[in-house]
Amino acid sequence: MSHIARVFIEQPLRLDHPVVLPEGQSKYLLRVMRLTDGALVRVFNGQDGEWACSLSVDRKVAVLTPTKNLRPQENGPELTLLFAPVKKARTDFIVEKATELGVSDIRPILTDYTQSQRVRTDRMRLLAIEAAEQTERMDLPDIQEALSLPRALAEWDKTIPLIFCDEGGRSAPLADFANQLTGKTAGILIGPEGGFSPKERDMLHALDFVIPITLGPRILRAETAVVSALTLWQSLFGDWQKAPYLPEAE
Amino acid sequence: MSHIARVFIEQPLRLDHPVVLPEGQSKYLLRVMRLTDGALVRVFNGQDGEWACSLSVDRKVAVLTPTKNLRPQENGPELTLLFAPVKKARTDFIVEKATELGVSDIRPILTDYTQSQRVRTDRMRLLAIEAAEQTERMDLPDIQEALSLPRALAEWDKTIPLIFCDEGGRSAPLADFANQLTGKTAGILIGPEGGFSPKERDMLHALDFVIPITLGPRILRAETAVVSALTLWQSLFGDWQKAPYLPEAE
Repeated sequence: MSHIARVFIEQPLRLDHPVVLPEGQSKYLLRVMRLTDGALVRVFNGQDGEWACSLSVDRKVAVLTPTKNLRPQENGPELTLLFAPVKKARTDFIVEKATELGVSDIRPILTDYTQSQRVRTDRMRLLAIEAAEQTERMDLPDIQEALSLPRALAEWDKTIPLIFCDEGGRSAPLADFANQLTGKTAGILIGPEGGFSPKERDMLHALDFVIPITLGPRILRAETAVVSALTLWQSLFGDWQKAPYLPEAE
Repeated sequence: MSHIARVFIEQPLRLDHPVVLPEGQSKYLLRVMRLTDGALVRVFNGQDGEWACSLSVDRKVAVLTPTKNLRPQENGPELTLLFAPVKKARTDFIVEKATELGVSDIRPILTDYTQSQRVRTDRMRLLAIEAAEQTERMDLPDIQEALSLPRALAEWDKTIPLIFCDEGGRSAPLADFANQLTGKTAGILIGPEGGFSPKERDMLHALDFVIPITLGPRILRAETAVVSALTLWQSLFGDWQKAPYLPEAE
């Protein structure tokens, strides 16, 4: 069933309750995906689990009727990515990969060396939806408004560890902080190309809830650091012990 | 010194022995990077370590003269990535990220579900050079010719474990295979979008040197799986215990 279209919708999903899709999504299903009357679609909304739905077409409008619940709702761990936007394609990539790797929240932050001050959270949300559809997750990451680094740190819940990928330092690997990171919730902070400024690094190192870690001997680009850090956290403290959902096995 | 240009060249590097750059590279340094006579450049060739070189310009040709050895030659672990080429931008990304994450060899493989049969190893080499320059590594990954999956497996050195990222299975995480993976050399095999065919999966599961692993409960795109698997191997068995090279500290 993984080759069956899988779509995120905003409306509630209940057995036999038809959902009329808005124009953009109707067009997408009918014209881009070329689905026709009677097609089977997998649908999730971040609340009601995943449903098999039957598609009907009513004057160019797509209507989805839930016919069977496939999976109950299940959300990933509470993991926030804070990242400094980089160039467009690489920022897109960060949002896509963070969604694939199961973050619950994405917060753009503006730092001393952030080149891109224009943050398109609407675009990020569309990318996150697309990635969530293809990666089989059942919830969407929440795309939060951009904040300056000092403000993001001031607003951070100090009981939650914030992992700071410190390429300018002599920090220890993530695994060494296992005793501080068992709470199943964390933040991961990735700087822009060129890293954090000396002032920012001093500020971060002075905060009790910030855990500086190394990502090895090579300098990683921002988007590589995002994927590497999220991978390490998920494999050590997150939900990677869970088996993948295999729709073929249904 | 990380803001000083860092370039890979093909020629030997010896103290006070000037190297005349070929036309393409001369143009790049003089026109794109806009370096002028007397500029300092960091240079490596994968053999002789990293050198500070002084640039001189002789009738539009760039000449680099090594003035000081900055670091002795040091190569990363022997880690081969075997991957099925996907769409162009994502294949480029895989080569760039594999280089950043310190692989020694990159081998494109053609599988049952590989969409792209055209493999541009020349282009991959250019991407690998660019990524090696920016990631501070001192060697280049070797870009090998594309092979079919059965042939790549037949030619594989059976004493080296081949880690197979099996998204269709119920495999264990990489860390569970620590006793089989301490040899500091390994291969990592990543399939195309859609994974491996049932026939290929049977073939892989039947081979003694193949270690099937899971990359968590979500379905990852091919390029995400590459970064995740390389990150895990490097952090568990590779060189991530080493501190980064910090040219600023020179």
